[in-house]
Amino acid sequence: MQAISKQSTDFLYQQVIELIQQMQRSGTLRAGDKLPSLRKLSSRLEVSVPTVKQAYLELERQGAIAARPQSGYYLKAEHAKPLQSTRAQWRKTVPTPVKCRSLIERVYEEVHKPGIVPLGIANPVMACSPDKTLARTMRRVLSKVAAKAVSYGPIHGDPDLRRQIAYRYQDHGIKADPEQLVITNGAQEALSIALQCVAKAGDVIAVESPTFFGLLELIEALNMKALEIRTCSETGLCLDDLSQAIEHHPIKACIFASSINNPMGSLMPEDKREKMVRLLEEKDIPLIEDDVYGELYFGEKQPRPATFYSRKNQVMTCSSFSKTAAPGYRLGWLMPGKWEEQAKRLKRSHSCSTGMLQQWTMSEFIKSGDYDRHLKVLRKTLAFNSERMRCHVAKHFPEDTCICTPQGGSVLWLKCPNNINTATLFETAIEQGISFTPGSIFSPSGKYHDYMRISFGVVWDDEIEAAVVKLGALVGQA
Amino acid sequence: MQAISKQSTDFLYQQVIELIQQMQRSGTLRAGDKLPSLRKLSSRLEVSVPTVKQAYLELERQGAIAARPQSGYYLKAEHAKPLQSTRAQWRKTVPTPVKCRSLIERVYEEVHKPGIVPLGIANPVMACSPDKTLARTMRRVLSKVAAKAVSYGPIHGDPDLRRQIAYRYQDHGIKADPEQLVITNGAQEALSIALQCVAKAGDVIAVESPTFFGLLELIEALNMKALEIRTCSETGLCLDDLSQAIEHHPIKACIFASSINNPMGSLMPEDKREKMVRLLEEKDIPLIEDDVYGELYFGEKQPRPATFYSRKNQVMTCSSFSKTAAPGYRLGWLMPGKWEEQAKRLKRSHSCSTGMLQQWTMSEFIKSGDYDRHLKVLRKTLAFNSERMRCHVAKHFPEDTCICTPQGGSVLWLKCPNNINTATLFETAIEQGISFTPGSIFSPSGKYHDYMRISFGVVWDDEIEAAVVKLGALVGQA
Repeated sequence: MQAISKQSTDFLYQQVIELIQQMQRSGTLRAGDKLPSLRKLSSRLEVSVPTVKQAYLELERQGAIAARPQSGYYLKAEHAKPLQSTRAQWRKTVPTPVKCRSLIERVYEEVHKPGIVPLGIANPVMACSPDKTLARTMRRVLSKVAAKAVSYGPIHGDPDLRRQIAYRYQDHGIKADPEQLVITNGAQEALSIALQCVAKAGDVIAVESPTFFGLLELIEALNMKALEIRTCSETGLCLDDLSQAIEHHPIKACIFASSINNPMGSLMPEDKREKMVRLLEEKDIPLIEDDVYGELYFGEKQPRPATFYSRKNQVMTCSSFSKTAAPGYRLGWLMPGKWEEQAKRLKRSHSCSTGMLQQWTMSEFIKSGDYDRHLKVLRKTLAFNSERMRCHVAKHFPEDTCICTPQGGSVLWLKCPNNINTATLFETAIEQGISFTPGSIFSPSGKYHDYMRISFGVVWDDEIEAAVVKLGALVGQA
Repeated sequence: MQAISKQSTDFLYQQVIELIQQMQRSGTLRAGDKLPSLRKLSSRLEVSVPTVKQAYLELERQGAIAARPQSGYYLKAEHAKPLQSTRAQWRKTVPTPVKCRSLIERVYEEVHKPGIVPLGIANPVMACSPDKTLARTMRRVLSKVAAKAVSYGPIHGDPDLRRQIAYRYQDHGIKADPEQLVITNGAQEALSIALQCVAKAGDVIAVESPTFFGLLELIEALNMKALEIRTCSETGLCLDDLSQAIEHHPIKACIFASSINNPMGSLMPEDKREKMVRLLEEKDIPLIEDDVYGELYFGEKQPRPATFYSRKNQVMTCSSFSKTAAPGYRLGWLMPGKWEEQAKRLKRSHSCSTGMLQQWTMSEFIKSGDYDRHLKVLRKTLAFNSERMRCHVAKHFPEDTCICTPQGGSVLWLKCPNNINTATLFETAIEQGISFTPGSIFSPSGKYHDYMRISFGVVWDDEIEAAVVKLGALVGQA
């Protein structure tokens, strides 16, 4: 390893940076490789630990390396070919009765099977689970409230949990009233209630394209129609297209995930988000925001839920603890905007109330600070896994594969070359013990047949790496 | 106390019976009074304990006295004026868009308030809660499966719990396949899914009259119409009326609680139940059975769910553990008959899956035998409370009050004299710190304004007795 010159006019830390960049150019260090520890490099280069630390921090700021909690620094991926939206094709979109169930069912059937590498499951918590802390918290709760746990709880949820959630929104400057919040059986029930508040069978619902297939199934279950709006992998929904769609179709409501879309991981900038809310409220079109990934941002700070920009109270926010802490708890919520009364009535009619023990446990988990501590580590782990997954896909998938750069969440959206059918490939991959999510279930009209979604919400290990290599080979052979 | 003659030709135990009957006639013993213990009476009358026991058993068989677990024997109520169905009035029923929400909301708002005597809550578990055993079971489960509890579970529920539930049906000779069962967020979600499997907005749904208001709210939420079918307080739904209704209306589905209707506690005899299923299947009308009170029968054995008589697989059974063990767990299920595929899809679309920890806990609770042991005690307690409540109402309500004889469950349905409006009375009662459920919310057309439902799913104490006395006085003054 080259020495550092203490006589140079460059700062020592700048020389360390230059050294690392040289190693990268020469191929000594490759994307995904771990950098030497601070102590090790300081001793090798005979500079102080703070000097190396300063170099690493600067490289991290530049986006060249990333820190992984309890592990150290890693070199990030050279950017793979970014995903481009193909505008012309998407313009002529029409409302579509949703029919994508059989492939979705096939996917559900296979991805959870033991022994299958779970690249097809979007469960960020798998990357870093708070299970032990939650179990400890629940035990404490259980000894305090055992008798109450077998009684009916309030229909719209435990007051204490509602307060905790409201406080978190208040940190974003959102006037959240705990009394208005409705605790639900996961975000899926929140979305179902929200949609039933504002639309009925036959109505047209605007969705992002691509969008989460669970939404499409819900729209199908309610006999509504989905209208796909072009969505770009970087800044989210295309407002021009939304505007056009409003002119041409009787859109009854929109369901968008402006903060981290699933599957693309796109993030709508704040000013665009404000414009979107203005546009919709001007036309009196309710916006249902699917915000389940909102807390899993990779940037500096959490994006503001769209409801922040609402003036007419026509934005409903749906979210949950399923992507951030405990999917098995089935705990979500709905901030129902002006549809509070309808939302509470629908909650009561469709499932009465939500399990109390999980609510108390989650409330304690937040109050203790454990939830925020966990989120911090989870976000870092996911950001790091994202980079690592992009790097491995770039290395092992065919050259013409296009890869998104997720701004948060736990999945990677990519377009395979040669117009291959990923639904067919899914079966081959399952035979080889690997799951992923085929692209076409993210569109009601069967777009994205050559796309796939791969999860990086995993504990990264050799098996995962081997699966990516194998999957890349399968895509190459398809 | 009169002596027993050992010279008499009557058996000794017959003399004991005669003695008790005399005491009853003379007013020495009154309905609701506790009989002396076996030992005490045997010593007083100088006969053996088995002789007294035999007398008590015979009186119990005759329905004159009732045993209360861990407490002894009590004298049952002289039969109050039984409730008569008024046929003519109910014949001209028409499908009604449901609109009963504001009174229902008012009731929900008040009955759960602390300090209110909870005669308005139908929560049988309050009479005898398995909370400690369940908490112990959950702690054990928690230490075994903590990590798994934060993962997604199977969409239609934990396989082990589904097996436990299926076994219970198999005991009734019902071919229940664990793979077909769908675990839900309480029976309310099961009912919602079942209804969505077979009907859509605008469809006519036949319901019992009176029926559980939660069903009416659900029908309203789905924009369907309810058609009331006359139901008698003893043997349930009137089949002639059902038959007529089928001729005159396009009934899309029926929701009936043949085993213990809420609020009447009526129980349809087996042969009538068979006829009902035949009639509906002949006309291809799906039957959704609300069986939440099925296990809380007071008779010899559990009534067979209607699905037992199904030949065309067109009966769906909805039930839960909310009325038998733990309402706060929000655990129910749906046996979807031939609509298995639709039911699973709807479950996935509307709430994804059900909380896992409660499912494992309940499964263990059943396997250990604790559930059946608990049910046995709960049934006895409720049967006893039922008798005691009937007796107290007979004593303290105005003379012309008509009272049902519930065949199970935890509520008493009664008709007040003088055409009073129980919705108005509700407000007065709440001011006095007592809740009950006003009759009109049990009908979509606002029938039963002079009826009320009183819960005996309570821990019986002086406060309860005083509340009944006060409520009786309020009815008298109204």
